[in-house]
Amino acid sequence: MNKLSEATKYYIAGFLDGDGCINAQIVKRDDYKLKFQIKVYVSFYQKTKHHWFLIWLQKNLEYGSIRKRNDGMSEYTITGPDPVQNLLKQLEPMVRIKKPQLKLVLQIIKELPKAKDPQTFLALCESVDRFEQLNFSKKRKINSETVRSILKS
Amino acid sequence: MNKLSEATKYYIAGFLDGDGCINAQIVKRDDYKLKFQIKVYVSFYQKTKHHWFLIWLQKNLEYGSIRKRNDGMSEYTITGPDPVQNLLKQLEPMVRIKKPQLKLVLQIIKELPKAKDPQTFLALCESVDRFEQLNFSKKRKINSETVRSILKS
Repeated sequence: MNKLSEATKYYIAGFLDGDGCINAQIVKRDDYKLKFQIKVYVSFYQKTKHHWFLIWLQKNLEYGSIRKRNDGMSEYTITGPDPVQNLLKQLEPMVRIKKPQLKLVLQIIKELPKAKDPQTFLALCESVDRFEQLNFSKKRKINSETVRSILKS
Repeated sequence: MNKLSEATKYYIAGFLDGDGCINAQIVKRDDYKLKFQIKVYVSFYQKTKHHWFLIWLQKNLEYGSIRKRNDGMSEYTITGPDPVQNLLKQLEPMVRIKKPQLKLVLQIIKELPKAKDPQTFLALCESVDRFEQLNFSKKRKINSETVRSILKS
């Protein structure tokens, strides 16, 4: 990922605090030993009319992909521990409102490589659960409880 | 209004592009000679949970007032030609998505003092009409047509 200028970092941090999303999610992966994967991502939204803006962002951040949704919105998402960590480390001093989400994702990314056994993985899934409240998102279908019951069986 | 640091300007411009609003509106003023007034304003929104953030913004920008709405949102609005012009002139080089609204408000503010006669005022009201489309806002109750029909009678 590009090393961003200070100006760009402040601008993107402001935009992220306004209209962006820092998130982690548990997804089902039948081919994984622990049956689930923790996904981390940073998303930016904008009316498709302003699609050009997301392309400008992507040019700066290099990683991630943009898609046009069918509700008139475009969405630019950067996913994966390395790109997300790289971006958020750069924005950490500037982000204000979404600082709790930023810190939590960075902590999850740091602990991901150690989460090879069910116990440690489950603890990490509990950290992921906290995003439901932090991001005021709707009730999640897959949370640490789901993972616990599958891993037990 | 404070002279903002470059860093703060970039951050606020990003936040404004994400979650802010630059707007102008025609309001009825029975005590005015031309019966209407053109209001210009810049607003920032945030969940009331993050009310502290709007207070931080206000501390930086000095002008304007914050109110808690009854839908869980807080709203910080800076209104009036001088404070709005001062703020937008500082943010002009940094704002990206809302540049058209920014330029249009600055132009309206510049022309306001000259709009003392019905003809010039009406032309300015037509500029205000353009915000309906620029901000994807719902159909306005008062637009230049309303002003025209009242001033004619």
